[in-house]
Amino acid sequence: MLTYTHHNNEITLNHLNQTVHLKGWAAKVRNLGGLIFIDLRDRFGITQLVIKPENPLYEQALKIKNEYVLDIKGVVIERESKNPNLFTGDVEVDVTELSILNTAETPPIIVANDTDALEETRLKYRYLDLRRPLMQNFLMKRHQITQAIREVLVGEGFYEMETPILGKSTPEGARDYLVPSRLYPGTFYALPQSPQIYKQLFMVAGMEKYFQVARCFRDEDLRADRQPEFTQIDIEQSFVDMEDIQGLIERIMKHTFKKVLNVDVATPFIRMSYQEAMERFGSDKPDLRYGLEIFDAKPLLNGVDIPFFQGKEHIRGLILEQGSTITRKRIDQYTDVVKKNHGEALAYLRLQDGQYSGSIVKFFNEPDLKQLPLKEGNIMFLVPGLFDHVSSALGALRIELGNEFKMIPENTYKFLWVVDWPLLEYSEEEQRFYAKHHPFTAPVDPEVLRNDPKNAMAKAYDIVLNGYEIGGGSIRIHRQEVQRLMFDTLGLSKEDINHRFGFFVDALKYGTPPHGGLALGLDRVVMLMTNTTNIKDVVAFPKTQSAKDVMMQAPSDVDAIQLDELNIKVGEVK
Amino acid sequence: MLTYTHHNNEITLNHLNQTVHLKGWAAKVRNLGGLIFIDLRDRFGITQLVIKPENPLYEQALKIKNEYVLDIKGVVIERESKNPNLFTGDVEVDVTELSILNTAETPPIIVANDTDALEETRLKYRYLDLRRPLMQNFLMKRHQITQAIREVLVGEGFYEMETPILGKSTPEGARDYLVPSRLYPGTFYALPQSPQIYKQLFMVAGMEKYFQVARCFRDEDLRADRQPEFTQIDIEQSFVDMEDIQGLIERIMKHTFKKVLNVDVATPFIRMSYQEAMERFGSDKPDLRYGLEIFDAKPLLNGVDIPFFQGKEHIRGLILEQGSTITRKRIDQYTDVVKKNHGEALAYLRLQDGQYSGSIVKFFNEPDLKQLPLKEGNIMFLVPGLFDHVSSALGALRIELGNEFKMIPENTYKFLWVVDWPLLEYSEEEQRFYAKHHPFTAPVDPEVLRNDPKNAMAKAYDIVLNGYEIGGGSIRIHRQEVQRLMFDTLGLSKEDINHRFGFFVDALKYGTPPHGGLALGLDRVVMLMTNTTNIKDVVAFPKTQSAKDVMMQAPSDVDAIQLDELNIKVGEVK
Repeated sequence: MLTYTHHNNEITLNHLNQTVHLKGWAAKVRNLGGLIFIDLRDRFGITQLVIKPENPLYEQALKIKNEYVLDIKGVVIERESKNPNLFTGDVEVDVTELSILNTAETPPIIVANDTDALEETRLKYRYLDLRRPLMQNFLMKRHQITQAIREVLVGEGFYEMETPILGKSTPEGARDYLVPSRLYPGTFYALPQSPQIYKQLFMVAGMEKYFQVARCFRDEDLRADRQPEFTQIDIEQSFVDMEDIQGLIERIMKHTFKKVLNVDVATPFIRMSYQEAMERFGSDKPDLRYGLEIFDAKPLLNGVDIPFFQGKEHIRGLILEQGSTITRKRIDQYTDVVKKNHGEALAYLRLQDGQYSGSIVKFFNEPDLKQLPLKEGNIMFLVPGLFDHVSSALGALRIELGNEFKMIPENTYKFLWVVDWPLLEYSEEEQRFYAKHHPFTAPVDPEVLRNDPKNAMAKAYDIVLNGYEIGGGSIRIHRQEVQRLMFDTLGLSKEDINHRFGFFVDALKYGTPPHGGLALGLDRVVMLMTNTTNIKDVVAFPKTQSAKDVMMQAPSDVDAIQLDELNIKVGEVK
Repeated sequence: MLTYTHHNNEITLNHLNQTVHLKGWAAKVRNLGGLIFIDLRDRFGITQLVIKPENPLYEQALKIKNEYVLDIKGVVIERESKNPNLFTGDVEVDVTELSILNTAETPPIIVANDTDALEETRLKYRYLDLRRPLMQNFLMKRHQITQAIREVLVGEGFYEMETPILGKSTPEGARDYLVPSRLYPGTFYALPQSPQIYKQLFMVAGMEKYFQVARCFRDEDLRADRQPEFTQIDIEQSFVDMEDIQGLIERIMKHTFKKVLNVDVATPFIRMSYQEAMERFGSDKPDLRYGLEIFDAKPLLNGVDIPFFQGKEHIRGLILEQGSTITRKRIDQYTDVVKKNHGEALAYLRLQDGQYSGSIVKFFNEPDLKQLPLKEGNIMFLVPGLFDHVSSALGALRIELGNEFKMIPENTYKFLWVVDWPLLEYSEEEQRFYAKHHPFTAPVDPEVLRNDPKNAMAKAYDIVLNGYEIGGGSIRIHRQEVQRLMFDTLGLSKEDINHRFGFFVDALKYGTPPHGGLALGLDRVVMLMTNTTNIKDVVAFPKTQSAKDVMMQAPSDVDAIQLDELNIKVGEVK
């Protein structure tokens, strides 16, 4: 039993001459003029130890290397040369008792905030990577954020309830991870992509207020900010409409930002329609920390005859104020960005030193040019085409420019609700509708869904922070006939419905209350609140981009006998 | 937005003449002498509504059936005939506004505490089964218990941290659930049986205090109190010895029982060695709520020549005071219990109306009989054989008798720590050692492990409540050479070690602090605290005994294309 008296972030001049008992890791060992100095580190901070040559422990202390685990007692003394960057930097501890709890070989990565280790190496030695104070702080913040969110929910009477991980495969959406059943050969459980159906069943069951810190799984090809398993704060409540859930989430964010970051978040958050978000920012998750808004350029081009703008439904644009230094080569790169994001072309006009230039300048008269809202040094970018294409192209360009020209203020948090979503998306290719969110989202008006599905609007809302969607939710369908209508509209046959969702449609008919909810992406929230851009930083044991655990070496081979028991065979590797 | 003013458990005579706004389900609808009475139920309780014939809402109210979802306003009035069993039983609400939020068909199970529905039916309609107040209470208590446990841990500086569900298969112990990898054909993830390795890596990483409400998985043939997935409160701490972890768990239990049940739990808990528990109670998880202790009967039989006791290493017994009503047939059933639990035979002696009788009475002289500690009406049971066999047989008989003769007081909670465990178990059959707990458990003395493994003791401790093991833990091995010695003793080859645990043995060499922990079985804790004996009662969506979700119909077939993507084939059903 180690009854240490202090953590390593606590001792100051107030403790002078006290005997303290500390434990931790030797973060740095130096031998200066015969004195041995050791930075003793624990999860809270660092305290400097000193062992003088006349100290009987000196010989033992000479053996200590980086990352040895130590248990010491000593007397707090004032330092000769103080370290103003360290809370404990005015003092050091003159060691009187020393016990080496464990030794350490030279670690393959340096245990310090700065690292030049490759990500693969860091993941392989994750247990050392996590010993870096920076990384420990990410996980501590994650803990604090989770608790703060929970405090609001528990305080408001939500029950935290668990739902199964071994569930049922309901294709539609992302790919499921499957688990072969041993007892029923040839059948499979699926890991949940979200507890959506379960949480609605809690409402059917009259639980009224539910939440869960829920693990979810998607077997998708990974992107930088995706992991095969991720965590969402899953929330559902009965007898609510959209404003209730939005208000709840605002209270959660306000409390969490205040408690964890001491940041005051103003509520209510801005509401912006999906349409407006697309028009002004070319994104359904606009970053409101900076302007650079998209505008309709058609009125500006009245009477200007630009061949490749002819007959285009939309011509929309951006004006960048600091346009003078942009090279031709850079503009080619912007064009690539535009084209990768469904834009057909990028035109530009620049006013520099009183002269207009650019790809379309030749189509303008001087008076028409002077009518443009261009000031000295500005550059205007224009994209022609269909609204969706133009918007996503300019939305991507806006982000590129925002980053490049450092338009994004630090430590600023801009929340908004994106609302007024279409209920359905029509796939021209497959000649069928898809649910824009999921098929349990309530329509604003079921009659519109019945008679004019293309124009049906959803009771759905996404919460966006600094350009990231951090959560999405909706009011759910609670009437069986509306749920059937929804499935019909999506083109599911009666058989399909019964096979996939039969029990759920059944459940709706026994007195289901109106209900709705939201799921917050915890990993993203933590990422944004800790100012990192790598989601792996906020996950204790993440997988690589290719879904591998390089520390554990998973996935891995298994014994033939295990597969035999499951009655499955591995095919030829293709 | 439903801005209801009260829950249905709140309204009393204090609210007389107030207008209230309520929501909930019609739990019971009665039409008495022209008055319509509706018990309106929510997750908190019931309030009676009344609609009088002269009420303009009367016609609408006539349509209401059981389980309709209602939103009402009304005036609180005093009841004519009060219901003293209901907190709200002095009043009823005279309805002035009524909105039927949803209708309900007649449910397939009755939504009331008492049910005669089959378990299969209850599980199929779990969303209705959970609407029963009894079941809602189980889940609410589970929520409260989890929060109370968390309060202590968070308060003491533990970080709640998540570990992967998609992990690595490390056979040894129970069977893993496997998840085929799509990206690496022929390889598999495994669902964790516990986060054991991850939590130790957190300690290697210097996180010092960790906990998690962790989902764990075992693909075992199920028993009544087992589910394929279960939840444990997983705890690990650095710089500790056994007493630290035990003290922490005692603080957790004390707080949780007080907060949730208002029960005062005395701490510290009794410590009892594994050996003593086996000797006195024939169990490593003794129920201390009643006596009926096992004793060594050999000294009593000095000079008594009983043929089938000859040469037996042990003869041990129980004395039941209330032995007079036990029939011959019942004794045959006890003999079955004994034999099912490794006992070779059951002998008995009874003193009734001053006469001795029983299977071995003929071997005794009158004076020897009088020497026995039998009082009028008592019966003594004796089992001969090896210690382990005798103990488990008498331990099982003790439980049988304890239940039958109602020796177990209600609402009593008897905790104890079972300590001083052997480190290893020797399998005569396989001629090898197994770890009694798991191979990461620290020996009390590594030298004994090296030189005399059969007698090596473990730094392990189980917490037992009312005859159930509710948690087990240990101090872990933190020195690489001891971990290697342990694996050697278990007969693992260097290759085996490297393949299964290589990275972990590696991790130990970079400065691992002393550490230990414990995992509490949450499902069992909740079961015991809610006085149910069925673990399914405290799991929201449990599987059947044969690992099936009969509501969702999981496991289920999946599309051939999904299996194709995973490169696996289902074999012939055997």
